[in-house]
This record gives sequence, structure tokens and C-alpha cells, in this order.
Amino acid sequence: MRQVAVAAIAAFLDAPVTGDADRLIRGLSTPDCADSGDLVFVSSRRRTPDVITAGAVLAAPGVEFPEHTTIIRVPDPAAAMMRVIDWLFPATRVFADVSPAAVVDPSAQLGCDVGIGPLAYVGADVCIGDRTEIHPTATIGRGALIGDDCVIHTGVHIYPGTLVGNRVVLHAGVVLGADGFGYIREAMPPALATPDEPERLGKVPHVGRVVIEDDVEIGANSTVDRAMLADTCIGRGTKIDNLVTIGHNSRVGRHCIIIGQAGVSGSTVLGDYVTVAGQAGLAGHIRVGARAVVGAQAGVTKDVPAGERVLGSPAVDARIARKALALIDSLPEFKRRLADHERRLTDVERE
Amino acid sequence: MRQVAVAAIAAFLDAPVTGDADRLIRGLSTPDCADSGDLVFVSSRRRTPDVITAGAVLAAPGVEFPEHTTIIRVPDPAAAMMRVIDWLFPATRVFADVSPAAVVDPSAQLGCDVGIGPLAYVGADVCIGDRTEIHPTATIGRGALIGDDCVIHTGVHIYPGTLVGNRVVLHAGVVLGADGFGYIREAMPPALATPDEPERLGKVPHVGRVVIEDDVEIGANSTVDRAMLADTCIGRGTKIDNLVTIGHNSRVGRHCIIIGQAGVSGSTVLGDYVTVAGQAGLAGHIRVGARAVVGAQAGVTKDVPAGERVLGSPAVDARIARKALALIDSLPEFKRRLADHERRLTDVERE
Amino acid sequence: MRQVAVAAIAAFLDAPVTGDADRLIRGLSTPDCADSGDLVFVSSRRRTPDVITAGAVLAAPGVEFPEHTTIIRVPDPAAAMMRVIDWLFPATRVFADVSPAAVVDPSAQLGCDVGIGPLAYVGADVCIGDRTEIHPTATIGRGALIGDDCVIHTGVHIYPGTLVGNRVVLHAGVVLGADGFGYIREAMPPALATPDEPERLGKVPHVGRVVIEDDVEIGANSTVDRAMLADTCIGRGTKIDNLVTIGHNSRVGRHCIIIGQAGVSGSTVLGDYVTVAGQAGLAGHIRVGARAVVGAQAGVTKDVPAGERVLGSPAVDARIARKALALIDSLPEFKRRLADHERRLTDVERE
Repeated sequence: MRQVAVAAIAAFLDAPVTGDADRLIRGLSTPDCADSGDLVFVSSRRRTPDVITAGAVLAAPGVEFPEHTTIIRVPDPAAAMMRVIDWLFPATRVFADVSPAAVVDPSAQLGCDVGIGPLAYVGADVCIGDRTEIHPTATIGRGALIGDDCVIHTGVHIYPGTLVGNRVVLHAGVVLGADGFGYIREAMPPALATPDEPERLGKVPHVGRVVIEDDVEIGANSTVDRAMLADTCIGRGTKIDNLVTIGHNSRVGRHCIIIGQAGVSGSTVLGDYVTVAGQAGLAGHIRVGARAVVGAQAGVTKDVPAGERVLGSPAVDARIARKALALIDSLPEFKRRLADHERRLTDVERE
Repeated sequence: MRQVAVAAIAAFLDAPVTGDADRLIRGLSTPDCADSGDLVFVSSRRRTPDVITAGAVLAAPGVEFPEHTTIIRVPDPAAAMMRVIDWLFPATRVFADVSPAAVVDPSAQLGCDVGIGPLAYVGADVCIGDRTEIHPTATIGRGALIGDDCVIHTGVHIYPGTLVGNRVVLHAGVVLGADGFGYIREAMPPALATPDEPERLGKVPHVGRVVIEDDVEIGANSTVDRAMLADTCIGRGTKIDNLVTIGHNSRVGRHCIIIGQAGVSGSTVLGDYVTVAGQAGLAGHIRVGARAVVGAQAGVTKDVPAGERVLGSPAVDARIARKALALIDSLPEFKRRLADHERRLTDVERE
Repeated sequence: MRQVAVAAIAAFLDAPVTGDADRLIRGLSTPDCADSGDLVFVSSRRRTPDVITAGAVLAAPGVEFPEHTTIIRVPDPAAAMMRVIDWLFPATRVFADVSPAAVVDPSAQLGCDVGIGPLAYVGADVCIGDRTEIHPTATIGRGALIGDDCVIHTGVHIYPGTLVGNRVVLHAGVVLGADGFGYIREAMPPALATPDEPERLGKVPHVGRVVIEDDVEIGANSTVDRAMLADTCIGRGTKIDNLVTIGHNSRVGRHCIIIGQAGVSGSTVLGDYVTVAGQAGLAGHIRVGARAVVGAQAGVTKDVPAGERVLGSPAVDARIARKALALIDSLPEFKRRLADHERRLTDVERE
């Protein structure tokens, strides 16, 4: 970023300064890492170091600081910092035209101002919308359709026939459209069968697609599998974190949040505004209603009604689960008390 | 797919039609997504929408539909649909020759009809069997051997010296042969040691290999690590889902199923026909017997006898675990009852 | 490896031989896989097959073998094998110069003897230290700094502005610097809002960096996210396994071990020498003290004091958790005993 005076930032935010308004800010940081050229934001003094090393602080009214701290007072410091970021780090195109070192099939149709980086691959009959960027080593398989204003980062792999909407961001290593995990046990052909190898797994063909709606963002190395028939669908505005897997024929609603390393099995349906926390797993063929919240590491084995919060494995209502899980540590005590009651009951009965 | 009349599909399946045999089918779908040009299959009316929007239905005998539905009656609708898919979507080669935009070391040996896509990399002394396809941006390290009729999808990375059998399918982002995770704590060299940095982790060299036997399929972004010595081995016909990790020196048997996000630690041995469900974790140096089933999210810490089903973390016999896990929610009630018994016992004892 | 006589290996280790010192060793292996040309090591006879098929054994004093086994006696067989590996498999450069098939921006600065493989991408203003290797299809984004003697394997993706120290090894598919997972719920713009779509998720911009210190190794397909502000940092000498995700703004200490499929959420801080076992998950904004150990599949929801071991989900002291988790299987019995006590208490009270 360019350097800018505290006064200029305050003017941009239309906010008052106390302290050194002429100080030059050269970076943005967090209170525990900042040096005298950095601007930081502090929403509360909890977890904030006592000594403010930053050059200036975006702070909420009433939050106190040591004397001589340079402070820009704003009602919502986090929101103000986001406005400052957007101002000082304007979005820039990294790849704004088609690199001669990319491989683009002549039959591919590219919109206006499409950027394709070196060593990217765009297959036959692919269609890419205006201003979309395809970064180096990303691959777009035959017949895929990508909308406008997307960013397809390095090493993303989109299988043939996939549909991607507008303003979609796919981070490095995302895989869309690999075959779903479907097999059927079948007898080994007689010529190959042996007593300890009587069966094998026959592949279920997958001729459906993956459909990613507008404004979806998917984190690094996550995967969304192709449907057997019809579509695996990620609804508009949904955000998916890193290393998440979405199974074949599942349908994720709009504006959902799916956090790192969670997994959604095949044919499962999530309503709108659902949250799935980290490392949670959803069984196949279940329905999770709108605005439901699945807790971290939960194992969901049956339908979840709209708005419900679940936790545990198998997952149940989160309030019940939280109380119950907290009592697991008491099991040794429960065991002792059961033995104690046993002994005392026997005594009482004897009398 | 090309369009085809219902009558032609029925003739192909040698099955009777009721309804509009002349209707043209232009796609295959699922009952909840289908339009009037789609063929769907319905094995039972559970979870099937009441209104059939599809153009025609592959249905089992006895399953009833609204009047005017066009039905092809078959004994096993799922199997019939798979036959139809194979017929209407014949397997086609995507890359049938060596792209001039691929980088293939002159010392590599390629079988007949090998396809190597643009921007793929094939290192020195690699040997690739007949009809195998290497998709764009896949990399095959020095001295790896790949069999016949394999499909190595985009962005697969095969480290040097790996062995891959025939008819193996590796989905995008699979990594075979990265170093196993092995370190030993060692004293920091005196020149670098400090009171709070007395030790460091020394790398255990990994000079073994990964061996993938015939007919294995591995899902997107899964990893199989190189052995320290000898081989990490995935047995014939085994199917591995997305984001699975298989540790160094482990040996997975034949025809196993390992579902998404499961992990097998180093030196663990799985017999044939083992199933490991999603997000399960197996500790290192254990043995799981043939046809054992490890439940979803289980944490297996010790050997599992052949044929046994285990669940929970730590994992135990699945029938016991299922009953026990279902009672976790009752812990608050157990606690209340223990307190109640305590009180009543004290009362009784006082008398 | 080249072939070498048992006597030569013994001389290199300065260790005595019993048996056939002239035997030629052509490979290194494990006792259960070895043939007569292999050297193996045996630290104890537990889990070692009764029949020794290997050509020679590195064995500790006192460990007994069948007659005619060729044995090199060493105090620490594992350490001796590592010395033999280093001797017989000297580290070699795979890519020792810049391939003409790589794409390197003219503004990138390369140290001495940098190796850049075919189809690798190095962006503008990147700086790469001496002797570092960038393997095929790896990508280094604009302005990233990579130190000396690093190995950046195939398909690694380093986002712009990332800092990587010296002697860092990144395995295939690692992603450094993707945007952290941060969104805020915001009202849908009036023109788009509907009763069932009133809000959307606004992206929190991420302008911080990822910093990887010296001697770190990261396993295949793991991800480390960019900080919103300041840095996500992996401390010197830390080793991370496959499919691990490290969230934005978290700071991992020095010489930590993070095992496969574990996840560290945003803004969490780990001290030095921390161990996080496989599939464990750490919530955001917590602190794990130096030398703490987080057990496999644990779910850590609050701070962990230095040196403590935790287990379970939610995680508690490991000794307590181990006893408690082992009693989950007894819950059906607890239930029966509670019912039994209930009945007997009622009987006693009636009298």
C-alpha cells in the first residue's frame, strides 16, 4: 500500500483524531504485531496488549488507551478497517489478458477482458464470461461454462461440463466435478474369482454435473463431486472453507457457511443459511433445514429441522448435547457412585 | 448424449413400455430435477416426488405412478439406468495422443495410444502403459511406472519411483509418494541451542515407494505417502474417496472402500474387503482384519478382528457403541437420578 | 542404490558382522517385505516375522535370530539404518537449472543454482534464494520471497506476498496464502432482497501474509491461510503432515508437530514444541501452551496450559478423558444399574 497520514484516514472515515494526526501510516496490522508505521483496530481491550506499539488505532468510543496513543474514534472499528482496506488496497487484475503461454482450445469462447495466466488450460467448447481470471496451472475441462467476474486461482481443476456462475472465487487446488464415490459390489468374473476374492466393486457411472451458483467462494483444496445424474449444486452466496468435501448429488442452499474439513455426503440437502462448523460430517440422503447450525466435529445421521442447532456424534439438539458431553468427564465419578449406592442398598436390604 | 425414443431404450433393455413410447429422451436425471425430456429411475416411491415431471421412468414392477406416466418396467431400475448410461455415454478418450504442449522427457517410454494432455509433465525414465491418459498439469516423477488403461486426471502429482497398476483412475489433485511423516527429536546443535530451544526434529529419510495395484480408484485431493523402506501399498480393486490420507508403510488390502476424509496412519495393515467410513481415523501400527467395517468418525486405536464392526472414539464393537453413544444424551438424567438415589438412600439409612 | 557388500556396510557403521559378510545388498526394506538382496533393521523381535528373508539384518545386541542369519550388530538399529540411507541415497538435485519450459517473470530475482522445473510459474518481483528447487507446475505468486535450499514440490501454490524461510520443504499440493475464511452477515441490497433471502455474506478482505520460518516441512495438500492483517506464521522447525489446515492469523510455534487432517482455526496461538495429533480440531482465538499435546480427534475449545495433555471433544485433561471415554461403553450397564437401584430403593422405601 501507499503511505498515508492519519489525518487523511480520519478524513476518509469522517472521524475525529486524538494524538499525532500527521503520522504516516505505511501498513495495516494487528495490535500484537504492529510497529509505529501500522494502523490497527481495537474493538475491545480484551486480548489487546497493554502497550500499543502501533502508529495509530481505530477504536470504538469509550475504549481507553495509554496517553500519547494516536486514536481515530469510529463507531465500528472492524467495519472501518474494512473500508480502509478497500480504499488502500483497491482490487487489481492480476491476469488481464490471455497469456501466450496458456493453452486455450480454439473452440473456447472468451468474454471481454478475460485474463488467462501462463500455463493455464482451457479445453474445447469452454465458455468464459467477461472479466473472469484463470490463474496459472488452473484447468477448465471441455464444455464447462464459467460466468463473469470470477477468479479461478492457481491449480483449480474444473472437470468437463461444470457450470460456474458469476463472481465465483475458487481458491487454489479446488476440484469441481470429479466422479462421485459410487460403486456396487458385483461377483468377480468366473475367470478371475477365487475363494478369497469372490467379489469386486463395479463403478457407478457419473454423468451428472456440478453447478456452482453466483457469489460462491470455495477454499483451498476443497472438492465438489459430480452427480451421478442431474446436478450437485452449491447455492448462491454460499461460502465454503478449505479441505471440505461435498458429495455427489447433494444440494447446498443459498448463503450457507461450511467450515474447514467438514464433509457433506452424497444426496444430502441443506436449506438456505445453514452453518456447518469445522470437521463436522453429514451422512448421505438427509435434509438439514434452513438456518440450522451443525456444531464442530458433529456427526449428523438424520434430518435436522429448520433453525435447529445440533452437536455431538451422533448429533442431537445442541443444548442437550453440550450438557451431556460436559458430563462424560464425570463418568468415573458416576461409576464410583453407582458402586457406592449398590453397597449401601445391599446393606439397607440386609437389615 | 444423443436423443433417443423411449421405445428404443425399452428395446435396448428388452423391457415393456406403458405410455408414450414415441417420446424423445434427451437427458438422464433424478425424479426431483427432471423435465419432460429426461429419463429417471425409481426403485421405490419413498423419497420420490408425487408429481412425475420426467419424460419417462425406469421402474420396478409393482411401484405405482400417476396415470399417463410413461414407464419402462425393469426388475432392477438402478442397474438398468447404469446400462442405459453406458450405452448413451460411451467412454471416450479425452487425450488420445501426446500434446506438443506437454513436457515429456526423451527417456520416457510410452505404450501404444498413450494420451498426454497439454501442460502435463513426464519425467526421465518414466514408463507408461498402453492407452493410458495423462491429463493437463498432471506430473509423473522420474522412474515412475504407470500401467495400461489408466486415467491420471488434471493436477495429479506422482513422485519419483511410484508404481501404478492397470486400469487405475486417479482424480484431480491426488498426490502419490510424498515423504512419510517421520521425524525424531534430536538435540539442537550446540551452536544453535538455547534454553527454550534445546531440541529439533530430524527428518527420517524415506526411500521406499508407493505401489497402487490394478483397478484402484482414488478421489480428488487424497494422498498416499511413500514408505520409509519397502512399500506403501493399495491393494487391487480398492476404492478411495476424496481427501483421504494413507500413511507411510501402511498396506491396504484388496477391494476395500475408504470414504471421504478418513485417515490411515503409518504402518497400519487393512485386510481385504475392509470398509472405512467417512472421517474415521486409524492409529498407526494396527491391523484391521478382512471384511471389518469401521464406522464414520470412529477412532480406531487397536487391532480389529476380521468381520467385526467398530464405532466410536476409541472404537469398540459397533452394537455396543451404538447403544452407548445413544445414551450420552441421557447423562444429565443419569446425574439427576444418581442425586435422587443418593438423597433417598440417605433418608432410608437415617431411618 | 548401488549394490554393496555386507562387510562394507558394517565397516561404514564400524560394527561387527556375523554370517555372510560377502553377501551383496541391493536394496533396503522391512522384515515382512524383504528378499535376499535386502538389508533390514530390527529393534525388537515383537512384530518381526519368525523367518528372516532379508539378506542381512541391522540388529540390537541381545535380539536373537534363526541360525545362518547375517547380522550387523549396532546399538541403535533405526539410527544405523538412517545413516546407511544417507550414505547409499545421497541427496541429489532433481532440477538444478531453469527449464526453458518454465515461465519466470523477468523481474524475478533468482539466487545461485536455483532449479526451476518445466511448467513451473514464477511471478513478478518474486525472490528465490540459492539452491532452491521449484518443481513442475508449482506456482509462486507476485512478490513472494523464498529462502535458500528449499524444495517446492509439484503443484504447490504460493499466493502473492508470502514469505518462506530457508530449508523449507513443501510437498505437492500445498497451498500457502489463500484468503482466510472471514465473512460478515450483511443486509441484502434492497433491490435483491426477498423475504427468504434477506441477508448475504460480505467478504472480509485479507491483506495480511503467510510467513513460513526456516526448516519447516508441510505435507501434501495442506493449506495455510493468509492473515486478514499482519501474518499467519508457522514457527521454525515445525513439521506439518498431509491435509492439515491452518486458519488465518493463527501462529504456530517452533518445532511443533501437527499430524494429518488436524485443523487449527483462525487467530489461535500454539507455543513451541506443541503436538497436535491426527484429525484434532482447535477452535479459533485460543492459546495452547508450549509442549502441550492435543490427542487424536480431540476438539479443543479453550486454552490449554503449557505441558498439558488433552483429549476428547470437548477436550479435557487426557488422563481424565481416557478413563471417561473408556466408560462410555458402560452406559447401557449404568442405565440398567440405575433402574435396578430405582426398583430396589422403591421396595426399601415401601417397607
